Amino acid sequence: MTILRQPTRAGVRDAAEKIARVLPPTPLFISEIKGVTVAFKAESLQPIGAFKICGAWHRLTALDDAARKRCRRIFLGQSRAGVAWAAKRLGMAATIVMPSHAPRLKRESTLALGAEVVTYDRATESREVIAAGLAEARGATLVPSFDDPWIIEGQGSAGIEAAAQMAALGLGVPSRVIIPCGGGGLSAGIALALKDSAITVVEPEGWDDMRRSLEASWIEPVGPNPPPTACDLLQTLRVSPLTFDVLSRRDATGVAVTEPEIAAAQRWAAEKLRLVIEPGGAVGLAAVLAGKVALEPGLLVILSGGNVDLAAYAKVMAA
Amino acid sequence: MTILRQPTRAGVRDAAEKIARVLPPTPLFISEIKGVTVAFKAESLQPIGAFKICGAWHRLTALDDAARKRCRRIFLGQSRAGVAWAAKRLGMAATIVMPSHAPRLKRESTLALGAEVVTYDRATESREVIAAGLAEARGATLVPSFDDPWIIEGQGSAGIEAAAQMAALGLGVPSRVIIPCGGGGLSAGIALALKDSAITVVEPEGWDDMRRSLEASWIEPVGPNPPPTACDLLQTLRVSPLTFDVLSRRDATGVAVTEPEIAAAQRWAAEKLRLVIEPGGAVGLAAVLAGKVALEPGLLVILSGGNVDLAAYAKVMAA
Repeated sequence: MTILRQPTRAGVRDAAEKIARVLPPTPLFISEIKGVTVAFKAESLQPIGAFKICGAWHRLTALDDAARKRCRRIFLGQSRAGVAWAAKRLGMAATIVMPSHAPRLKRESTLALGAEVVTYDRATESREVIAAGLAEARGATLVPSFDDPWIIEGQGSAGIEAAAQMAALGLGVPSRVIIPCGGGGLSAGIALALKDSAITVVEPEGWDDMRRSLEASWIEPVGPNPPPTACDLLQTLRVSPLTFDVLSRRDATGVAVTEPEIAAAQRWAAEKLRLVIEPGGAVGLAAVLAGKVALEPGLLVILSGGNVDLAAYAKVMAA
Repeated sequence: MTILRQPTRAGVRDAAEKIARVLPPTPLFISEIKGVTVAFKAESLQPIGAFKICGAWHRLTALDDAARKRCRRIFLGQSRAGVAWAAKRLGMAATIVMPSHAPRLKRESTLALGAEVVTYDRATESREVIAAGLAEARGATLVPSFDDPWIIEGQGSAGIEAAAQMAALGLGVPSRVIIPCGGGGLSAGIALALKDSAITVVEPEGWDDMRRSLEASWIEPVGPNPPPTACDLLQTLRVSPLTFDVLSRRDATGVAVTEPEIAAAQRWAAEKLRLVIEPGGAVGLAAVLAGKVALEPGLLVILSGGNVDLAAYAKVMAA
């Protein structure tokens, strides 16, 4: 795919305005960790249970009328419910390419939104290759999960909302924002949105390629045979130049968290915030609770998704 | 305790205005059940994880300055965290009388808010007698859990908020509101707030004394040896004339739900709304999902609390 432009802060503001016309702001919660007040942005409470609704809305509404009519099918991977939701609302058809072992709930909710689902085996097939082939065969528009300026800008709208909510509560500008990171779309968008906040991105151990890339100053992929992780939201094998570039310019740093730390964060969120947070949505909170991010006033933690398989969630709660 | 006045609709409006100055509205969520749009008011997302913060705030702010100084201790039972939160914010001391087998989290969160906790054995002791004795001995003000006009009016503020949120979404006036019922404070408050909506109160089976009382047109207590229930929020042995009278005049009806129906509702809330709801907070949803309330446009379901013991919650999620 040819990148036509860089994502911009003005684009994030434009996205936030468009999104505010169709979706109410997600709630911001305040809680204390070791006596320090921390703000939590609950993107898990979006209608599809994740932040990806925002990037999809900004992307699909940016297609011109001809493209909307001509390209009646949209292909992509992980932003599945976001694109399906936006496509349904805009009267467009969507086809979602998703791993065959994705959580049952994610597949069912995508189908319930009227999208077609094409599955692939993550171990042996490439989602990008499958999606590109389908898009070419059908003359459709391809929407990547994160490697797209509109997607990045749309995801950043959560940062605009959170900053306004913190200001209204007298909490000032976020000193640091802590963001779950897969391909980096949400992280890059929020980094553009919050130009005066320090940026920390968080990944599961063994999948911390953005952390390593930011340290090395070039893109490093996930190594061979990455360990199993419960974070299906964050299993991206390589970040994109677009997202890496934004985060690198903002001097973002990365942190890796373990599976037990992620489970502990899910339990904390259930007990203290009364929120169901999926593993990939809880890594930022996990980094704070594990002491891997210094506690300071003005911390903003993004809780990016809440779609769980109940059987797996029950095991985490019981641990 | 002498009842000085009846709770009123004007009082509920006054309470809602006072509460709006210190607490943001809890979110209203929309979801579909069998193709019918249903609205959910998430009182579980109050800072203390339950609706009781509102009644407590209205009650304590209504004490005059002399009473606030003279009566530095507040005694009561189930509204524990609500009164503790309001007392802390107003610089008053609170003592909470709670069952010795109350969930650990509820006791800890009450202590964390700076309140003193006095425990009693629900099987052999009366909370009301203990609280009244302590109040007299210490010259303090007694705040009942539900048998109080200010408490009822304050709890009703959730109805004012929800109606405004539904109107803003173009959903119109709630056709029917479905409310978890223990002593009836929340139910009566919302019945006053929503004068044009049908009222259904929901209780666990065997604890459905409000249902039987509304049918009989006089107050009937819970029978001897009521069955075990996970709904510690709703284990009230007798409703009060104040709450019964309001609900009776509004022609409210009652529904009883089983423990498996309640657990199924908790799972549905986790999966579809990404919310942690405690058993007693989920009974209204349970009645709808079990088909015990007719599905119709304009339904409003109150999710009244989200404080869970994780071990018990894990068992419910795994079922």
